[in-house]
Amino acid sequence: MNMLELIEKKRDGKALTKDEIEFFVSGVTDKTIPDYQISSFLMAVLFQGMTDQETADLTISMSRSGKICDLSDIPGTKVDKHSTGGVGDKVTPILLPIVSSFGIPCVKLSGRGLGFTGGTIDKFESIEGFCTSVSPSEFKEKIEKCGMLLGGQTSDLAPCDKYLYALRDVTGTVPSIPLIASSIMSKKIAGGADAIVLDITCGSGAFMKDLDSARELSRQMISIGKLSGKPVTCVLSSMQQPLGEMVGNILEMQEVVNVLSGRGKEDVLKVVLTMASEMLRFTDVGKDKDRETLMAMCKERIDSGKAFVKFGELILSQGGMLNSDGTPVFSDKPFEVMTVFAEKDGYVSSCDALSVGEASCLLGAGRMEKEDVIDMGAGIRLYKKIGDKVKRGEELFTLYTGSKNPVGDDRIDEALFRMQNAYEISDTPVDAPEEIFDILNP
Amino acid sequence: MNMLELIEKKRDGKALTKDEIEFFVSGVTDKTIPDYQISSFLMAVLFQGMTDQETADLTISMSRSGKICDLSDIPGTKVDKHSTGGVGDKVTPILLPIVSSFGIPCVKLSGRGLGFTGGTIDKFESIEGFCTSVSPSEFKEKIEKCGMLLGGQTSDLAPCDKYLYALRDVTGTVPSIPLIASSIMSKKIAGGADAIVLDITCGSGAFMKDLDSARELSRQMISIGKLSGKPVTCVLSSMQQPLGEMVGNILEMQEVVNVLSGRGKEDVLKVVLTMASEMLRFTDVGKDKDRETLMAMCKERIDSGKAFVKFGELILSQGGMLNSDGTPVFSDKPFEVMTVFAEKDGYVSSCDALSVGEASCLLGAGRMEKEDVIDMGAGIRLYKKIGDKVKRGEELFTLYTGSKNPVGDDRIDEALFRMQNAYEISDTPVDAPEEIFDILNP
Repeated sequence: MNMLELIEKKRDGKALTKDEIEFFVSGVTDKTIPDYQISSFLMAVLFQGMTDQETADLTISMSRSGKICDLSDIPGTKVDKHSTGGVGDKVTPILLPIVSSFGIPCVKLSGRGLGFTGGTIDKFESIEGFCTSVSPSEFKEKIEKCGMLLGGQTSDLAPCDKYLYALRDVTGTVPSIPLIASSIMSKKIAGGADAIVLDITCGSGAFMKDLDSARELSRQMISIGKLSGKPVTCVLSSMQQPLGEMVGNILEMQEVVNVLSGRGKEDVLKVVLTMASEMLRFTDVGKDKDRETLMAMCKERIDSGKAFVKFGELILSQGGMLNSDGTPVFSDKPFEVMTVFAEKDGYVSSCDALSVGEASCLLGAGRMEKEDVIDMGAGIRLYKKIGDKVKRGEELFTLYTGSKNPVGDDRIDEALFRMQNAYEISDTPVDAPEEIFDILNP
Repeated sequence: MNMLELIEKKRDGKALTKDEIEFFVSGVTDKTIPDYQISSFLMAVLFQGMTDQETADLTISMSRSGKICDLSDIPGTKVDKHSTGGVGDKVTPILLPIVSSFGIPCVKLSGRGLGFTGGTIDKFESIEGFCTSVSPSEFKEKIEKCGMLLGGQTSDLAPCDKYLYALRDVTGTVPSIPLIASSIMSKKIAGGADAIVLDITCGSGAFMKDLDSARELSRQMISIGKLSGKPVTCVLSSMQQPLGEMVGNILEMQEVVNVLSGRGKEDVLKVVLTMASEMLRFTDVGKDKDRETLMAMCKERIDSGKAFVKFGELILSQGGMLNSDGTPVFSDKPFEVMTVFAEKDGYVSSCDALSVGEASCLLGAGRMEKEDVIDMGAGIRLYKKIGDKVKRGEELFTLYTGSKNPVGDDRIDEALFRMQNAYEISDTPVDAPEEIFDILNP
C-alpha cells in the first residue's frame, strides 16, 4: 500500500477500504506521509466525497490516533454537546449547569475561538481565576466535587485530526462535509462521550450557509454515530442573526448570568432548552419523556434558581471567583465606545450574523490569527433583532472595547461600518425567524 | 495576493488572472509557496480545469521561470518537434536528418525515458561516444558544423515546470490536460522554438488513451500556440500497437538505420514523413506546397541516401562513432533470449503497445525508477503487427537482453507473460490500423 495509490483511487472516485484509511491516519500521525500528499488527497476528498463507511472509518481511526479519555469510572451515560459554531453562541455555559442539576455527570471539552466565531473556553476564561487546563486524570475528582467540568481540548486527543485541521486551514480543503463531520466526531469520541448532541448552526454566521448543507452534515454525523456505536442527535438551529443580545466574551457571560437568573431572551432560551432536553433524552432522567416535558423540566431548573447555583459551583470548582451575589468576577469591564440609533421607523429585516461577528472580532473580541490575544471586554450589544419593531431614535446597538488595550480608531470605524451594513430596516412588518429548523434523531 | 486565495478560487471553479498565475509560478520557482499548497492547487486544477487563457498564461510564465534559449543568431524559422510518448517511437532520429538535409537548422532538446515509454536521449546514448550534454552556448557552433543538434533538456530551462512535474508525479495530479499541455509547451518555448509540430500519440501505449482526450490535448496545445505567438501543428497518431518492429534502445537505433537505408516499415515511414512535412510547412522550403508534395520530397531524401549521410554527420558532430559502412557503433550487442512462434493460423488482432512497453521495460530497456540504469541492448523485435496474416510456427516476437548485465529469470518470465497477453490472433481477417488519425493546424 502506498499513499500515491490512495490519492489516485480517491481522485478517480473510488471508495477506500478500512485498511487504506488506517494506513492514511497512521501515516499522518507518525508523519511518514509528506504534507504534499496529504493535501492533494484532502482536495480529492473535497471533490469526490466519501461514503458513509469511509467517513466513519476515518472518524474512528482518527479518534484512536492519540489518547482516549476513559470516563467509564464515572457512572451513567456521558452525553457530550457540540456546536458547529456561531456568533453570540453562549449555549454551553447555560446548558451545562441545567443538565448537571439533574445529577447527570457532564464532561465538556471545548475549543477556543478563531475568526468571527467565539470559543467557549475563551468565554469562561473571562472569569477571574477560572482555569480550563484540566488533565484527564483530574476528571473524576472534579466530577465528584461538582458534577461537571469544562476543559480545553488537549493536544493528545485525536492528534491526527489536529494535524489535518491545521493543514486543511492553509490548503483550501476546509469545506468538505465528510472532513468536517469526521473532525468533530473524532474529538467527541476520543473525549469519551457515550452519546452526542450536536447543534448544527446554519446561516451567514455559521459554517453551513444553507439548510441543505446543514442537513447533509447532520445526516453524516448521525451515520458516523450509528457506525461507531455512539448515538448522535442533531439540532439544526438558525445562525442568520446572532444568538441572544450580546456578542463578546464578558458580554456573553453577562448574558449567561441573565438567562440563568430568569431574564433570558426567547431565542437563547429556546436553543438551550432544546439542546438540554435532547441531552437528557439519552439518560435515565429523560429516556421515556417527550420533548415538551423535558423542556419544561429544564426550564424549571432555571426558574427555581438551581441552575444558577450549579453555575456558581462550576466556577468555584475550577478556581474562578464569585461576587457576593453569586455572579462571576470578570477580568475586565466592557467599555462603551458608542451607541447607534435607528434613523427611521420600521421593522428589523436583517441583523446579519457574519457582519456582527466580524465587527466584534475587529473590536478585539476574537482572533484574526491563532496567536492574537483576545480583548475580553470587547463586543457588541444588540437591542433589536429581526422582526422587532423599531422607532426612529431608538437604540440599535452598542460597540464595546476592553478598558485597557482597546483597538485603534481604524478598527472601530471598520466595525461600525460592518454593523451599519448588518442592520436593515424595512417599512413593512417582518416575521421573527425560527430558532430551530429541525431535530434529527438516529 | 496569497496562495490560499488562489487555491480557493480555483477550487470554486473560477479562472485565475495573469497576475495570479505569475504569482504562483514565481512562488513555485523561488520556493516561497510550500509544497502542500502547490499540490492541493494542482488537484483543484485537475478537477476544475483551466480556461485556454489560464493555460497559456501558465505556459508562458513557466517558460520564463529560468533561462530561455536564444536561437535568434541562427537564421531561419526554428521548428521544434515533440511526441507525447510511445512504445517503439523512433521518429526523431529519422526525421531530424531528413529535415536538416533541406538546410533547415534543427535544434532538438529531448528527454530521457521513464516507465514504459522510451526517451530519445537514451536511444542516441546507445551509440558509442555520443554526447547529449550540449550547453546552449555551443548551439551555434554545432549548427554551423552539421546543421542540427540533439541535446538533453538542461535543468535551467523552465525550472518551474521541472519542479511541478516532480510534484505531480507523487501527488496523483499528472492526468490533467491543461497541466500536460502547459508542461510540454513551456519547455518548447523556453527551448527557443519559433514553431512546434507535436505528435499526439493515442492508444494503450500512450498517455492519452482515447481519441477524445488526444483531440482535447491538441486543441489546448494549438490554443497555447496561438496565445503565445508560436504556431503549433498537432499530428494525432496511433499508439494502439508499438511503432515499427523494434522496441528498445539499440534495437530501435538499428531500425532507424534500416529506415534511413530505405528498408523501413510502412507505419514508421508514414509517421516520420507526416511529421517531417508538417515541420517543413513552417519554413521557406515548404510553405506553399501541399502535403503530398512535401511527403514525396522527404521520401526522396531517404531514397537518395541524403538523410543517411546527415544522420552520420549528426553522430560525428556529437562525438559518436561510425563503422566503415556509415552505421553507428553501438555500446552493446543485443542478446537473443528467446523467440516465440505462432501457435495457430490466423490474423493478428492485437499487439498491445502498453504490454509490449512494459515487457521491454522488464527486460531492462526502460527505467522503473528515475535512478535505474538502462540496459541498452534489451528490448523486443516484433515480426507481426495488427492485420498481418500469420501461420502456425511463424515467428511472432523475440526477447532481447543486453550482453553484460541481463535481468534475472523472474523478469524475463514476467516479460514473456506480458508479451503473450499482448498478442491476440483472430480466425477472421483484421484491418491494419490507421497510423495517423488527424492533422490539426492552427
